Amino acid sequence: MKIAFVIYDGITLLDFAGVFDPLTRLKTMGFLDTLQWDLCARTSAVRSTEGVVLTPDRVDKNLAEYDFVIVPGGDGIKGLMQDKAFLRWISVASDTTTVAALCGGSLLLGAAGMLRTKRATTHPALAVFLKNFACEVVPDRIVDEGNVITAGGVTAGIDLGLYLCGKIAGEEVREKIQQQMDYRNYTVR
Amino acid sequence: MKIAFVIYDGITLLDFAGVFDPLTRLKTMGFLDTLQWDLCARTSAVRSTEGVVLTPDRVDKNLAEYDFVIVPGGDGIKGLMQDKAFLRWISVASDTTTVAALCGGSLLLGAAGMLRTKRATTHPALAVFLKNFACEVVPDRIVDEGNVITAGGVTAGIDLGLYLCGKIAGEEVREKIQQQMDYRNYTVR
Repeated sequence: MKIAFVIYDGITLLDFAGVFDPLTRLKTMGFLDTLQWDLCARTSAVRSTEGVVLTPDRVDKNLAEYDFVIVPGGDGIKGLMQDKAFLRWISVASDTTTVAALCGGSLLLGAAGMLRTKRATTHPALAVFLKNFACEVVPDRIVDEGNVITAGGVTAGIDLGLYLCGKIAGEEVREKIQQQMDYRNYTVR
Repeated sequence: MKIAFVIYDGITLLDFAGVFDPLTRLKTMGFLDTLQWDLCARTSAVRSTEGVVLTPDRVDKNLAEYDFVIVPGGDGIKGLMQDKAFLRWISVASDTTTVAALCGGSLLLGAAGMLRTKRATTHPALAVFLKNFACEVVPDRIVDEGNVITAGGVTAGIDLGLYLCGKIAGEEVREKIQQQMDYRNYTVR
């Protein structure tokens, strides 16, 4: 099981950290010892919206090699929505790869054409833009369309990460991780 | 207004990112243009529990120069609870500096002797250890004892950050930041 966390200049740190924490606990809490993950970018260093420097593990790696590709949001999406090479890079949803986005990350999936036949969600303030790209935009916290999953804004990354833990390892494991995160309000709808 | 975010080897990334996001939004959303913040460490590079490398803005900086000093948790606390120089470094609660910790960070404040006359909280699984250091341990999400504030586990950092936003800029600003974070369940008790 391999997970790629996509990072880029202008990512919101909490968008990434919220979905990263529960998923990495699958390994650090001993539920899935074979789990591997990489921070994947198209540049050798990344600076978050707030100025935090993150170092990618892999640059320009083929994302189709991963079971899950996670796309967080952040101000950097404004440029990336026009960046055809970036959009091609993340367009890897298939029978073997699930692409999951949250917040502005949903707009990247939309601009890449991945939501044309899908229901989707995003940050409430971005829903109006997502309507240009998705079959239907709904206000749910998480929308699971099989190999493409979208979630709400910023802190919805925590719910998305927990939801994926449930898909990967079952609800009992998801509950134990949620408890260890001291997270009281797991929300899917 | 200056905020120090203390980072160290073995920090939990979400402990840091959760409290960092709402506080930095005071500036990025235009509520407090004069806000400055630094990631402060005692080493020139820091690796989170999950392997993410973070680069401090300041190394061994005098923390008494900040208005708020934020101490997140993580596995690294086990060593730091014995590290007298580190504990002295964070012991800066005064009339002009508030020290706020969450999760295992509360144990660092405890080991530094900062909770001897205070009520405090931490991750539920760590409460039994905090009892050795604090006047009283309570299960609240946030415990505000003036210049020393403690919060619950991991995701309680989000509530702590929002709570501090309310203290610094008022409840109306706190609500706007919470909404922008798409965070539905702000919890203090």
